[in-house]
Amino acid sequence: MNHINKIEHIGIAVKDIDQANTVYEKLLGVPPYKQEVVESESVITSFFKIGNNKIELLASTKDDGPIGKFIAKKGEGIHHIAFDVDDIEKEMDRLDKEGFQLINKAPKRGADNKLVAFVHPKDTNSVLIELCQEAPL
Amino acid sequence: MNHINKIEHIGIAVKDIDQANTVYEKLLGVPPYKQEVVESESVITSFFKIGNNKIELLASTKDDGPIGKFIAKKGEGIHHIAFDVDDIEKEMDRLDKEGFQLINKAPKRGADNKLVAFVHPKDTNSVLIELCQEAPL
Repeated sequence: MNHINKIEHIGIAVKDIDQANTVYEKLLGVPPYKQEVVESESVITSFFKIGNNKIELLASTKDDGPIGKFIAKKGEGIHHIAFDVDDIEKEMDRLDKEGFQLINKAPKRGADNKLVAFVHPKDTNSVLIELCQEAPL
Repeated sequence: MNHINKIEHIGIAVKDIDQANTVYEKLLGVPPYKQEVVESESVITSFFKIGNNKIELLASTKDDGPIGKFIAKKGEGIHHIAFDVDDIEKEMDRLDKEGFQLINKAPKRGADNKLVAFVHPKDTNSVLIELCQEAPL
C-alpha cells in the first residue's frame, strides 16, 4: 500500500504575488491556472501545473500571518512540501503512531479544494510537510 | 510545448544520512531505493520514490562542501527543487534569454544518472532550481 501518492505541490513563500507570478510564468513556461485567497491563513495563493505536480506561490495578506512571519524570519523561499494522500485521517493516525508531531489535530480546509494537515518540522529535519486530500464534495 | 515536464525531485539537506533515512522511511512509508556518493559535490545522497517524483536526501562528506556550508548557514531543510526537462541545453538557453542567471555554463553530471544545471536563486524568489535530464548512455 502506498501511504503517500505523490508530491501534490511545493509551497513557495513570496513577498509580492504579482512579481512572483511573472517570474514563475517565465521559469515554468506556463501561466498560473488559479489564484485564491485563503482567509483563515491570511494568504493569497497562486498555482502552476507542472505535469502531475503543482507549484503554489504564497504571499501574506497580513504582516502577522504565518507567511508574513516566515518571510520576516527566513526571507522568501520554499515554505513546505505537500504530499497527496487518499485518506488524510488514516495517514495522520499512522504518522502520529510513528512518533511524528502533527500541528493540526484534525484536517482543515486549505486552498485548491483540499483537506490539509501539517507535520511539525522538528521531526522531519526542518522540513514543513503538508498532507493533503482532495475534499469530498 | 512543455518546457518542464515535472518535479523530478526535492533535495533536502541533512546532517546525518542514516538518521534522515530512518525518519523519511517512516514518513514516506517506503525505504530509499538508492544511496550514491557524488564526489564532485562532496555529498552522499539517498533517494526515495514517491509516485512519479523523488525525495533526495543530501548529507555533506566535507564541512566545506556546498551542503556543509548550506547547513552551517541555514540549518537542515529543503535545499533545491529539481525539474525534469527533455533537453537541458535548450532549456538553459531559454532561461538565459528570459534573464535568469545560470550557475553552470554547461550541464554537469549529477547523482542518479542525470545531467544537471542550476538556476541562481536571486532570480527565483530565493529558490534554488535544478534542471535535470536523464543522461544519454
